[in-house]
Amino acid sequence: MTGLNVTQKLIGAHRVDGTMAPGAEIGLRIDQTLTQDATGTMVMLELEALGLDRVRTRTSVQYVDHNLLQTDERNMADHLFLRSACRRFGLWYSKPGNGVSHPTHMQRFGIPGDSLAGSDSHTCAAGSLGMLAVGVGGLEVAMAMAGEPLHLTMPRVWGVRLTGTLPPWVSAKDVILEMLRRHGVGGGVGRVVEYHGPGLAALSAMDRHVIANMGAELGATTTVFPADERVRAFLAYEGRAGDFVEILADPDARYDVEDEIDLSALEPLIAAPTSPGNVVPVREVAGEDVHQVVIGSSANPGLRDFAIVAAILAGRQAHPQVSVDVNPTSRQILADLTRMGATLDLIRSGARLHQTGCMGCIGMGQAPAVGRNSLRTVPRNFPGRSGTKEDSVWLCSPETAAAAAVTGRITDPRTLPDLLGIDYPVLTRPERAGVPEGMFEPPPPAEGRRVELVKAPSIGRLPDFDPLPDLLRGPVLLKLGDDVSTDEILPAGARVLPFRSDIVRLAEFTFGQIDEGYAARARQAGPHVVVAGGNYGQGSSREHAVIAPRHLGLRAVIAKSYARIHWQNLANFGVLALEFADPADYDRVGEGDELCVRRLRAELERGGDIVVHDVTGNIDFVVRHRLSPRQVEMVLAGGQIPLIRSRGAS
Amino acid sequence: MTGLNVTQKLIGAHRVDGTMAPGAEIGLRIDQTLTQDATGTMVMLELEALGLDRVRTRTSVQYVDHNLLQTDERNMADHLFLRSACRRFGLWYSKPGNGVSHPTHMQRFGIPGDSLAGSDSHTCAAGSLGMLAVGVGGLEVAMAMAGEPLHLTMPRVWGVRLTGTLPPWVSAKDVILEMLRRHGVGGGVGRVVEYHGPGLAALSAMDRHVIANMGAELGATTTVFPADERVRAFLAYEGRAGDFVEILADPDARYDVEDEIDLSALEPLIAAPTSPGNVVPVREVAGEDVHQVVIGSSANPGLRDFAIVAAILAGRQAHPQVSVDVNPTSRQILADLTRMGATLDLIRSGARLHQTGCMGCIGMGQAPAVGRNSLRTVPRNFPGRSGTKEDSVWLCSPETAAAAAVTGRITDPRTLPDLLGIDYPVLTRPERAGVPEGMFEPPPPAEGRRVELVKAPSIGRLPDFDPLPDLLRGPVLLKLGDDVSTDEILPAGARVLPFRSDIVRLAEFTFGQIDEGYAARARQAGPHVVVAGGNYGQGSSREHAVIAPRHLGLRAVIAKSYARIHWQNLANFGVLALEFADPADYDRVGEGDELCVRRLRAELERGGDIVVHDVTGNIDFVVRHRLSPRQVEMVLAGGQIPLIRSRGAS
Repeated sequence: MTGLNVTQKLIGAHRVDGTMAPGAEIGLRIDQTLTQDATGTMVMLELEALGLDRVRTRTSVQYVDHNLLQTDERNMADHLFLRSACRRFGLWYSKPGNGVSHPTHMQRFGIPGDSLAGSDSHTCAAGSLGMLAVGVGGLEVAMAMAGEPLHLTMPRVWGVRLTGTLPPWVSAKDVILEMLRRHGVGGGVGRVVEYHGPGLAALSAMDRHVIANMGAELGATTTVFPADERVRAFLAYEGRAGDFVEILADPDARYDVEDEIDLSALEPLIAAPTSPGNVVPVREVAGEDVHQVVIGSSANPGLRDFAIVAAILAGRQAHPQVSVDVNPTSRQILADLTRMGATLDLIRSGARLHQTGCMGCIGMGQAPAVGRNSLRTVPRNFPGRSGTKEDSVWLCSPETAAAAAVTGRITDPRTLPDLLGIDYPVLTRPERAGVPEGMFEPPPPAEGRRVELVKAPSIGRLPDFDPLPDLLRGPVLLKLGDDVSTDEILPAGARVLPFRSDIVRLAEFTFGQIDEGYAARARQAGPHVVVAGGNYGQGSSREHAVIAPRHLGLRAVIAKSYARIHWQNLANFGVLALEFADPADYDRVGEGDELCVRRLRAELERGGDIVVHDVTGNIDFVVRHRLSPRQVEMVLAGGQIPLIRSRGAS
Repeated sequence: MTGLNVTQKLIGAHRVDGTMAPGAEIGLRIDQTLTQDATGTMVMLELEALGLDRVRTRTSVQYVDHNLLQTDERNMADHLFLRSACRRFGLWYSKPGNGVSHPTHMQRFGIPGDSLAGSDSHTCAAGSLGMLAVGVGGLEVAMAMAGEPLHLTMPRVWGVRLTGTLPPWVSAKDVILEMLRRHGVGGGVGRVVEYHGPGLAALSAMDRHVIANMGAELGATTTVFPADERVRAFLAYEGRAGDFVEILADPDARYDVEDEIDLSALEPLIAAPTSPGNVVPVREVAGEDVHQVVIGSSANPGLRDFAIVAAILAGRQAHPQVSVDVNPTSRQILADLTRMGATLDLIRSGARLHQTGCMGCIGMGQAPAVGRNSLRTVPRNFPGRSGTKEDSVWLCSPETAAAAAVTGRITDPRTLPDLLGIDYPVLTRPERAGVPEGMFEPPPPAEGRRVELVKAPSIGRLPDFDPLPDLLRGPVLLKLGDDVSTDEILPAGARVLPFRSDIVRLAEFTFGQIDEGYAARARQAGPHVVVAGGNYGQGSSREHAVIAPRHLGLRAVIAKSYARIHWQNLANFGVLALEFADPADYDRVGEGDELCVRRLRAELERGGDIVVHDVTGNIDFVVRHRLSPRQVEMVLAGGQIPLIRSRGAS
């Protein structure tokens, strides 16, 4: 038997179901869960609908990091609801101001070797510690809390060997941008990215977080790093040396796919609007006017990611044309930046210090003016995600962002020494992390079940969903192109997020970025179909992007291919995800066409090809599905919750 | 001749028109102006409409402190427009992040003896330095920038003699709350409040800012303090010792009205929902549950107002039920708090540190949940101003706010030593203020007139307004009670502020807090009337609260009495402000009644009683106006701008 890689070790240790052959469905035991407020209110409503008394995971943490602007009463109502739900169901509660879930979870709860399911697509960031961390839909996190295994399609393991060391002015963000430059936003679909090789030694655990986080942008199932000496040092710095467990690939480990990056050869990279996959060298776009620089988010969350910006700006003023918006990751990191003097340097330089949390990354404020370039250290620049419909958002490292903050133009940071006499800063961090006392509310003892959920009128309930009819007939209400993100299906941002707990109201925003008439047409049409190109549903894990159109009557999507989490969410809520057997048939179906599929139950259970009849065009075409028998049953029942309820009733 | 008080000296030094008899219209030369973004975009559009080339004031500063959440592209579009307008017209530009206008202006530009007109009702705060500082509508600030005198009704001078010193746990906020407890929100109408007496010596210039700021809540024209040794010390601390000018009342000065407060006898006070005039001792409401504490705003803007909260919270955790929202005043004050260690204490205690600016004070985020008590150090708690329709906002000192933050209940801070062993903190501030370099962009040299205004599509233009018809006929579309604030006429907050530069869009929100159908009915009705009780239009200076209903067809208001700024704004934009000669007639007019006034021009020019015919009720009643001949001409022309244009055309 050959040696195992880290991914195989982690999956092997948690597998309770299925075989480890790529493409097969496997079930994994989940040790920890993470929810944030934008997806978490729905998860708590799902726990209520499931009738759960108390979570069965070892550690489940509810963060409040998304919906922080509080422009009306709904936001605080959500916070009160979440806090009560944590007491009711036995979760840790991380209140507003504590910060972004992923780095905070890594710092305070991450344990090498543990499995983590999170209702946020960037949950994979915890792979930086040697965890098996997977972003999934909220309902799957709810099921994991209920003690059920998490089901995944067994991925292929993509070994990326790192050699060399990063040159000055080049940092971890440029590593993941290089991956995106090479492979694009679909490059990781069906894969786990596992980094290995001698280059790892020079990457701190938080650098690895940067790389693992944006594995989501590659479409990867997750990203995995070994738990090595750098992880040991990280946990020691965080005051948790006792939680370290060494997990290394065996010397003779093999990978399903192989790749290599020479870190020494990297240069500053930037993703141009409007996709994380549009990566070019910074020098190729240098000189473009910049009006905003946004620092923060789970993609560059580390102390060093802010401290390097502060060091570059120290004693200087930001360019008067540039709004420098700093979103500190967490209370802990802001406290340490303040101890280091970095906070003062940022304030003095003219930066705007915002409250800790996701903020600008998810369009929670900081929307740029139309067409004005905004350079951001965040993970995504999908159209409109910033809050501005015709935005121009670029993704880059903190070094590249800081260079633009000083010059007012896109600037290769390697030119700063010559241009302004700025040397690459050498940072000195505190001896150890300053962990604020009492940051979290721990789960109460077992009598929590007597706690009443605090539900303002703005906290809705989960709509009831009916089973899939055996004769599916309905119009194609939308025909979409490739790479449609969940930001486009159902936006986040300040206008929409306040309604996250109220599906009926929220549904009005469905596909609003693409077609403002969709919601009204859907209510009129009833059962209907959406047709899409490749990589449908990329981006955020929000299951609202399924629940809301499902509420409006969406029963099936026919696409060339799907992003993993959205595909799972569709099944969870009883929407049939079909794929064109011949992608060329995509061109034969028109918006408005009436489609029809007969004997659906038998067809789905049989597997294989299904014939769709296009009544309008009077043509037939063939589709397939990749649903497991478990998922078929779920979809036929109308979704996971109706299925569980029907079992309880029988 | 008897000696002069400070008010008389200041008015005397700036009077260019009228006599100093209370009730007469006077014209004042204006040295400085202050605009903020929520009112400033309209002011810049007015400068453009007036055809001004370059401001004629000595110092005019444009701040960006209100509209900072940037939930869509309009906010940054406003910032770009304002910056270009500053270059075009020769103003100082204070960018987002620099902080709240009033304390920042005081610290960086305030000069004892100068006159200041500001398009913000709290402009009066600069009276703390011995300035004559008046909050007015934007158009009057625009006229002042054009070198025109500012017209006011000569107020009576209300001398408030202060004796004693404040006890521990009682601070400046309690002094102005005591004034509001005694006199209510209309107590200062037609008056300037001038503080004098031996108690002044113990109040710093920034303490005086707290008291002067909320003079606006008394309805006073402004508040005045002498420029004495405490002001000298303040300017020296700010690195501007050279700007000090001593201005003291003559020893035999007299006041039109006299009052006295023994500071030693004060106790912690709090204004209960939903008016700054609902003041009670904190001890009377102690024990009520608290879910939010908001620290900041121009009402408690000083370093000590934050440092005292930090000192009380230092080494403790905020109560887990309470969201402690800290809105630092300005970049300068946040930097100094950081130097002092107070920022770190706040972060560690669990407070949420928001960006510098007005923020929660104007409902720019931080909206509380319905009915949950929010204790705030801000100046106003009008219904819905927090962003939550059924809010429960209380106004108090930083000491009282901090006590609630620690205990989760309304708590008399004097009980903290016994309750929790917390002694009244002794604060040590830095040796001198740390003034950030290059905080402002200075006005460019004269070639500024060639700068083009940067106008995104969301920057509208000022609508054209027609002259007042000689036969005024229209329905009473709304009948309102007493003390209706401009927050209720046209809200601020995150939902509405983004449209501040676009009157047509903004008008949809008019009276939305009171009657959501008003805008639609008004568009249908055309010319119409609003009937109101006493103190109509109190609160914010926003002239949008006139321009928007005027755009919808409002031609006259008939009220028992008016708040000063709103009354002036009505005249500026050609809306006739009438008063019931017999307040009892208020009860005889019904919503929906058709009203009619004939020969309006002759009636207005004649002065005295005007007969209004109520067609519906078939009754007549008598109204009056207090407009000067200057204002009558303006109203007949349709407002100040049509008047100026008609002069230019003739």
